[in-house]
Amino acid sequence: MTDPRDEIDVETRSQLLEAALELADLCAETTASIVGSGFEVSLKADESLVTTADVETERVFRARVAERFPHMGILGEELGDSDPDSDYRWIIDPIDGTAEFARHVPLYGCIIGLHYRQRPLVGVIDHRAMHLRCHGAYGLGAFANGERVRIDDWPSGRAADSARVGMPSRASFLKPTEAGRVFSAIVDAYPNFRAYHTCYAHTLAVIGGLDAAMEWDTPLWDLGATQVLIEEAGGRYHCMREIDIPGKGRHYAAVFGKPAVVSDIARIAGEVI
Amino acid sequence: MTDPRDEIDVETRSQLLEAALELADLCAETTASIVGSGFEVSLKADESLVTTADVETERVFRARVAERFPHMGILGEELGDSDPDSDYRWIIDPIDGTAEFARHVPLYGCIIGLHYRQRPLVGVIDHRAMHLRCHGAYGLGAFANGERVRIDDWPSGRAADSARVGMPSRASFLKPTEAGRVFSAIVDAYPNFRAYHTCYAHTLAVIGGLDAAMEWDTPLWDLGATQVLIEEAGGRYHCMREIDIPGKGRHYAAVFGKPAVVSDIARIAGEVI
Repeated sequence: MTDPRDEIDVETRSQLLEAALELADLCAETTASIVGSGFEVSLKADESLVTTADVETERVFRARVAERFPHMGILGEELGDSDPDSDYRWIIDPIDGTAEFARHVPLYGCIIGLHYRQRPLVGVIDHRAMHLRCHGAYGLGAFANGERVRIDDWPSGRAADSARVGMPSRASFLKPTEAGRVFSAIVDAYPNFRAYHTCYAHTLAVIGGLDAAMEWDTPLWDLGATQVLIEEAGGRYHCMREIDIPGKGRHYAAVFGKPAVVSDIARIAGEVI
Repeated sequence: MTDPRDEIDVETRSQLLEAALELADLCAETTASIVGSGFEVSLKADESLVTTADVETERVFRARVAERFPHMGILGEELGDSDPDSDYRWIIDPIDGTAEFARHVPLYGCIIGLHYRQRPLVGVIDHRAMHLRCHGAYGLGAFANGERVRIDDWPSGRAADSARVGMPSRASFLKPTEAGRVFSAIVDAYPNFRAYHTCYAHTLAVIGGLDAAMEWDTPLWDLGATQVLIEEAGGRYHCMREIDIPGKGRHYAAVFGKPAVVSDIARIAGEVI
């Protein structure tokens, strides 16, 4: 089985990573300028929050991509899916953790991914307010603020229940159908969990602040950068399921981090669903 | 019923608050210098983590208090309880969130309280790595990075289940006897919770990043600054229970933040225990 990403030479991947980092700078500047001048918060149809900063950041991102890469598709949280069948597809969540952002909690982040034929090629998670950015690209490694990062495995023989696992809050498990059973089973097994409710958990799984983290039935833009960052750091990313939620499209449940912890959480979730 | 804190004039309270802020500076400098030169991590008898930074920070704090306020008692997480019957009692957790600190997750904090006749007089929570400090004193208000903060109540008529509540991780509920029942009841009612596992949750309850937060059966040094900060910001602090845990001394369960959310969580916990 060949990986379609191997069709892209290293030089091109490196240039696309540079482009993603420039786009992350552009998004950070746009969000910051809106923070400086004040923003409005409103409720979306699905009752999640959106601010003028989310929409404007994604708009600026899309305009720049359209200019530089007119043949590539774009999927964004706020402004939809354009050209979804193109080989290259940029994926953006301009402000992941809008509820944190709106309350001035700095754990939110901008997520940028570039996928090639459904496979993650480049990823950036930028926590502007924390001065923390992870980036990576297929075959080129994963980095935190420019320093290479590597994920160790969980030591065999050490009790799993002391592992630190980043969980979505229980609310995330209630949105579709699980009624909290998956949540309960995992926090029973991993009581030393954390719930940040933003992509800060993904970042911590990449840089070693958590042993693993997970999302449950979430849209692709929440996970657009995570797989390539985790895998390039030497960790494991495992998709537990894909489901189509009526009116919301395809959603994903994934766990990622130290391979042994990822396998164990996937097993627990598999027994419950 | 008179409050013993009214015995202390405003000028004296103000001086004691200044002293607490100087002590917080001293602790931050001590911790930072140890971070710079490297620190060791080890397990305590209760299997929680301690680093050389925790111990050295508390040692420096105690030495300064003994020099400036030789008649006052000191309770610290790492180095015990001296003169517990004195009217004035300094309370310190030099690094709350040692596990976060050891993994370079910046959400840890230094907690400093000064209590007078068992009542909280002065409180400081300092998140050195996040450049965020809350301080307050009885009758003098609560502040975040020098700006006055005020806690609004939860709007009546708005569904409580969207409130953001800071929870300890489930592990905290398992230490003594509760077997997770309290945890489950509260996250059922407040699925939109966060779990930071450090005093960052207390800080967010003070500055409006969370609607309420709680601790379950935790030592006094984890709560040494919280009550005065919450109350001076206009919120409610409610002690749900005090218990003596063999070999560990007195522990406290408390909930604090917006009055309506605090009352509701206290009710839920009361029905379970």
